[in-house]
Amino acid sequence: MRKIGLIGSTGSIGTQTLEVVRAQRENLQVSSLAAGRNVDLLLAQIREFKPEVVAVAEAKDAEWLAQQLRVESWVPEIYWGTEGLLKAATEAEIDLLVTAITGARGLLPTIAAIKQGIDIALANKETLVAAGELVMALAEKHGVKIIPVDSEHSAIFQCIQGSKKNEVSKLILTASGGAFREWDIQRLQEATVRDALAHPNWSMGAKITIDSATMINKGLEVIEAHWLFGIPYEQIQVLLHPQSIIHSLVEFCDGSQLAQLGLPDMRLPIQYALSWPQRWSGAWPRLDLASIGSLTFSLPDYAKYPGLKLAYLAGQAGGLAPTIFNAANEVAVTAFLNEEIKFVEIVDVIAATLDQFSPQKAEDLEVVLHIDQQARYKAAELIKKGR
Amino acid sequence: MRKIGLIGSTGSIGTQTLEVVRAQRENLQVSSLAAGRNVDLLLAQIREFKPEVVAVAEAKDAEWLAQQLRVESWVPEIYWGTEGLLKAATEAEIDLLVTAITGARGLLPTIAAIKQGIDIALANKETLVAAGELVMALAEKHGVKIIPVDSEHSAIFQCIQGSKKNEVSKLILTASGGAFREWDIQRLQEATVRDALAHPNWSMGAKITIDSATMINKGLEVIEAHWLFGIPYEQIQVLLHPQSIIHSLVEFCDGSQLAQLGLPDMRLPIQYALSWPQRWSGAWPRLDLASIGSLTFSLPDYAKYPGLKLAYLAGQAGGLAPTIFNAANEVAVTAFLNEEIKFVEIVDVIAATLDQFSPQKAEDLEVVLHIDQQARYKAAELIKKGR
Repeated sequence: MRKIGLIGSTGSIGTQTLEVVRAQRENLQVSSLAAGRNVDLLLAQIREFKPEVVAVAEAKDAEWLAQQLRVESWVPEIYWGTEGLLKAATEAEIDLLVTAITGARGLLPTIAAIKQGIDIALANKETLVAAGELVMALAEKHGVKIIPVDSEHSAIFQCIQGSKKNEVSKLILTASGGAFREWDIQRLQEATVRDALAHPNWSMGAKITIDSATMINKGLEVIEAHWLFGIPYEQIQVLLHPQSIIHSLVEFCDGSQLAQLGLPDMRLPIQYALSWPQRWSGAWPRLDLASIGSLTFSLPDYAKYPGLKLAYLAGQAGGLAPTIFNAANEVAVTAFLNEEIKFVEIVDVIAATLDQFSPQKAEDLEVVLHIDQQARYKAAELIKKGR
Repeated sequence: MRKIGLIGSTGSIGTQTLEVVRAQRENLQVSSLAAGRNVDLLLAQIREFKPEVVAVAEAKDAEWLAQQLRVESWVPEIYWGTEGLLKAATEAEIDLLVTAITGARGLLPTIAAIKQGIDIALANKETLVAAGELVMALAEKHGVKIIPVDSEHSAIFQCIQGSKKNEVSKLILTASGGAFREWDIQRLQEATVRDALAHPNWSMGAKITIDSATMINKGLEVIEAHWLFGIPYEQIQVLLHPQSIIHSLVEFCDGSQLAQLGLPDMRLPIQYALSWPQRWSGAWPRLDLASIGSLTFSLPDYAKYPGLKLAYLAGQAGGLAPTIFNAANEVAVTAFLNEEIKFVEIVDVIAATLDQFSPQKAEDLEVVLHIDQQARYKAAELIKKGR
């Protein structure tokens, strides 16, 4: 029986994680749940999965939950705020923490869990993007395994099982090309929020769907892959593959490539992260290549996806550049979703924010979090000025 | 330093194996070489690779070789005939025997090597087709590893590294569809030897190229995969994939599929068999999916490829049925290459030969070899009658 903590339980990855748990009752048990403001769903999750520890964003939601659960047979410890999130990540008996929370908020609880020797099923992209060097060093120090949940990194992780790290010569991350893969550059100037949210293959949260349309999502994944697998940026390639069937590939030193394939369904990589190093059966629909018929591949056009190029540059610059890149992107995407900036201006905001900072090392978590805040402030300021 | 024996050194797989050895001098050493009648090439190989033991098919060729090598500094022991083949497989100091010989002749030396605890890099399809049950039981008894060289089985072998056998739910063998993949059934009636030898992707020997055109090659691979990986026939699927880039796939119990990809170049799977469980670098051209552009997939039509269906039936019938299937196919392909029968009659000869035998268990090697001979005799008789 594997005991899991789940922070971000009401989001897209969180609810699918609980779907997996529901089908794997003999293998998995939920020890903690943390969510933001969706307390109705969280209440239902508490009643179904009976965690020891629960956390929400705000004090009044914690009170409301306590009120609702007053007369139940099962009452968990209920906490709130950043402290609550940390308790959900570390206070319960947890073998594996699923970090399904989005944004830089995922950093603190992930690091706290690593320091307690808890393995991480990582769905929070920002943990490695903003603080990859720190987090991976800490994980090594505490003998903690960081297991990817993201479909691309899960694919790579599956492909390298049974291989040695020095036999890997290239990571090839596939990308659908997002909502605008059929659009030309000119038309992108007028892209609306609604256009950008229409992802062709995956049903995901708004932030990540916009990141997919800019391909900044893929840029963040390149940075994440760099830290997760310890591979130089020059050996990480992005390949457009509109069908999203091959979730990524690994090229080995002998030229052989291994690929992981499946229907676009996050339950598979989520379950693999929870079952690894084993595999458990899964009842979801299965890939049939004959009925798919054709898989296509091409190289991304950096002129159309300048955010992808910028992510590589930020990654290669190292230090705090990826932290700034990620923070500025979060602010810019929110501004775009609020219709304060145009789609094509997202990358302009990031580039302009990066220009405001001089190169700096990511010495400790305080520096990372400080620069993260500063970058958000600068990006917001730039957006305000630009209007 | 891994010491290899190579039987079938002058054929397509044999010469490519020596190409790999040439590039991996620091890792590989040739202890024995065996060939048939191509003594000029064998002589050059002896001079280059300096094996301890050499074998040829005929006594007069052995004498000729001894004559040629008389004044050299390096003179190997030279043998001939079946006994010579056995000596090449077992007499030298060998860690790994590469069985690159075609046909049922590969059986005896392979079994002799297994009995001596020598690992096998298996390129002789017939070993497992004709005597899979016996050979696998013997390999287990002697703690011998059977490592596939064939591109499809190598692909599967690469995909299952780091997995447990009970996690595999399906093997998916890809097939180019051979020389006639664009032909309709009607036109196949008039297919010539020249037509059948025009394989679109791979450059191979004549026998295997014809087997590819009938897809009997794939049928033999299905039987081989059954024994090699211990998977029931119902869980082995054949998928047409004209580009021959995905060399095969494995589906796991969670629905995830892993695939191995590469340009059609036998040096890669040959080297993997020699380097396993490691990988060594390879200097050959590398796959670039973006430049390939598109991979396509469809199910094979049993009406067009009746030999594939018949192979499944023979495999599922078990016992000596695959032995008979394989022997009759060898005779029929030779008859087709000699223009004694039509292309579409190859499968008729096999089916008619199978009909001549009642079900029988493969109790020991003597029975297998006896039935193999009988099936050849019956098939030849059927061909003679039919003319």
